[in-house]
Amino acid sequence: MGAADYVAIKDLAQYEGEVVEIRGWLYNRRSSGKIHFLLIRDGTGVVQAVAAANDVSTTAWEQLEQLTQESSLIIWGTVSRDERSPGGFEIHLQDVRVLQIADDYPLALKEHGVEFLLNTRHLWLRSPRQVALMRLRDRLMFELECFLRQDGFVRVDTPILTPNACEGTSTLFETDYFGETAYLTQSGQLYSEATAAALGKVYCFSPAFRAEKSKTRRHLIEFWMIEPEMAFYTYEDNLKLQEELMTQVVGNILEHCADELEEVGRDIKPLERVKAPFPRISYDEALEQLAREGLPLEWGDDLGAPHETAIADHFDRPVFVERFPAQTKAFYMEPDPNRPELVLAADLLAPEGYGEIIGGSERIHDYDLLRERIRQHELPESEFQWYLDLRRFGSVPHSGFGLGIERALTWVAGLDHVRESIPFPRLLNRIRP
Amino acid sequence: MGAADYVAIKDLAQYEGEVVEIRGWLYNRRSSGKIHFLLIRDGTGVVQAVAAANDVSTTAWEQLEQLTQESSLIIWGTVSRDERSPGGFEIHLQDVRVLQIADDYPLALKEHGVEFLLNTRHLWLRSPRQVALMRLRDRLMFELECFLRQDGFVRVDTPILTPNACEGTSTLFETDYFGETAYLTQSGQLYSEATAAALGKVYCFSPAFRAEKSKTRRHLIEFWMIEPEMAFYTYEDNLKLQEELMTQVVGNILEHCADELEEVGRDIKPLERVKAPFPRISYDEALEQLAREGLPLEWGDDLGAPHETAIADHFDRPVFVERFPAQTKAFYMEPDPNRPELVLAADLLAPEGYGEIIGGSERIHDYDLLRERIRQHELPESEFQWYLDLRRFGSVPHSGFGLGIERALTWVAGLDHVRESIPFPRLLNRIRP
Repeated sequence: MGAADYVAIKDLAQYEGEVVEIRGWLYNRRSSGKIHFLLIRDGTGVVQAVAAANDVSTTAWEQLEQLTQESSLIIWGTVSRDERSPGGFEIHLQDVRVLQIADDYPLALKEHGVEFLLNTRHLWLRSPRQVALMRLRDRLMFELECFLRQDGFVRVDTPILTPNACEGTSTLFETDYFGETAYLTQSGQLYSEATAAALGKVYCFSPAFRAEKSKTRRHLIEFWMIEPEMAFYTYEDNLKLQEELMTQVVGNILEHCADELEEVGRDIKPLERVKAPFPRISYDEALEQLAREGLPLEWGDDLGAPHETAIADHFDRPVFVERFPAQTKAFYMEPDPNRPELVLAADLLAPEGYGEIIGGSERIHDYDLLRERIRQHELPESEFQWYLDLRRFGSVPHSGFGLGIERALTWVAGLDHVRESIPFPRLLNRIRP
Repeated sequence: MGAADYVAIKDLAQYEGEVVEIRGWLYNRRSSGKIHFLLIRDGTGVVQAVAAANDVSTTAWEQLEQLTQESSLIIWGTVSRDERSPGGFEIHLQDVRVLQIADDYPLALKEHGVEFLLNTRHLWLRSPRQVALMRLRDRLMFELECFLRQDGFVRVDTPILTPNACEGTSTLFETDYFGETAYLTQSGQLYSEATAAALGKVYCFSPAFRAEKSKTRRHLIEFWMIEPEMAFYTYEDNLKLQEELMTQVVGNILEHCADELEEVGRDIKPLERVKAPFPRISYDEALEQLAREGLPLEWGDDLGAPHETAIADHFDRPVFVERFPAQTKAFYMEPDPNRPELVLAADLLAPEGYGEIIGGSERIHDYDLLRERIRQHELPESEFQWYLDLRRFGSVPHSGFGLGIERALTWVAGLDHVRESIPFPRLLNRIRP
């Protein structure tokens, strides 16, 4: 029980035989003469309350008769075990107080079109599937942070408003910052490199923004990303960390969220196979394989969604695609010492066609090379002076990665589209509600 | 030990008598003939390494001679207990590998001006005081989430990009969202009210933005806020929750961050007094008291920093100022049933003059009243239709609050200025680095 004095449906097992107060909303009702069977949800679960005309006052009975879907109410009744009920318990209703009789609910218990659902997202979130997804999202975020904290990482927040672009300038949101142009961040990484030199192992965890005019199943305009950055970690250390992280996080979600995974209809077998070590395939090998399968790419091309799916289909667990051509990746990545035209970068592809969930690399630690890359990419050197400073004052090999929360959740929950993975999705031409 | 194979300084006690590898930066050095005493930091702690010319190779000795402040290095040596050393252990150095000799470090171990420190924030963060502050911040955020999770709250993220303003339109950052004007959020509350109706007890935790042209010790342009929202919680439940939250969070920070609080010079006695219940003073009583003390306000005026300090000075722990005139507060607050010109809102003021750290209220649950308030405040009703919907479909009494991370940390750490409470502060006319 919290600061307020009522019982959560999820905790009913602790109150068997007792009279409890439940506060919630009517999810569904069926009536059989002088008995109402009410399905009540409170955000923690759903319980059936049985109300018999003989057991309650006339006033209470009249209130029950009026209840519409999503009407809010407080009930009092005795908890009893009942295997047939959702959650295994049932309430024998003694009294009721109706708080509000809901207007005709637009999301009645039937199928609706996607545009309609997105327009009523503020109500759609109440459906059992969406509640399960929000719980899975919450758990995913929590487990990621737990793993990192156990491993000695410190959360250090990076700014949203920045004067410079990290991943290219074409997809930036701009705003006026007291007379100067500022951009909404696309990644906290550059700042995390500074804080890693202060604290060793750090992560930032915040929204990021891409003003991309693409309307795909995988793109959000506003999304959340967790970005660990580790001083002294080599490319290999980085991949090992990612394997351990994903193994623990997916394992713990399977352990703690069985009900939610069932609610969203997720086949958990592929998730049970997420165990380190993960297979690896080089970019060059991937290109050969793709050519054999009728998906040829030019060397230097980036992988698209169909290519990622074709590659991942060869493996039963997440797979690293690694050692990309420098030209396809960001300016700050360390060259492969054996083949300087490549960079020590790896993308982790989810199985089952869900695409990239992690992108990581070792970062350039040499001052001269980094400055050269900034110039080659025609980035404004003056804005990167502070970033270059990190290579002048105690530069160390370091690595990091970014994990997109919505991409990862889309995979873990087995969603067709990323839009269900965030409470209020921002899509091309959609900023409401 | 993490994915990479070296020892963190904080864990040295586990390796007494063993040879370990430490990776870090030279914080300071003193030499005495054929012995160097190196203070090495790695982000988890500081350790003294003792290097004797007789014990190391000539190459190693020559490298040690060249070390400048913030040079990066790997050392190998034996761990031994030494009460005089910081952290209680010392390393007898056997070998060293210097990674980079740092350029002349701009933040030498002396006093610097604030503008200079802010301009070199990317390096300033490495100083022991700033490292301690970042650890305190990390712990504060973690403890807040821990309390809420233990109490059954679910984290549900709210959007940064929104089409409407929650707290007034004068201090909003604008951006172009595919041809439409979007704003950076000032609070996730309205969205959390929707998710509370889905999940019961929720919180959002994200950056928020105020384009305020004020340059005070308490204002940041970009700041973090945690905002719990609870369906069915009354005004009193809400205050009780805040008391329990602050008591546990401050208690756990005292328990786990003694070293960090000492590093920043915090007198912990006032923090030890943070125990529920907290005293309360009504707005009307506060005005009377302020008048007696020569700080008169008109009824309906908002409290400024000097007023908050004067009120808080009468109490030895955080104090709620409550029941404000409706006109001084946001449109969505529930009227006081006994005096409808007041709202059921309370601000929690930190002791010692640190000002407001929490603002909370019961929210209006009646559809007609809420619509009336939206009209009175001349807000665009069409943009609030989804918010009004929450009062049409299962409206319930509900309450919530927002806690500003930087304001709270400024108090907990005893800082003169909020700028040290966030890794990369965004201030009026400061967006770099």
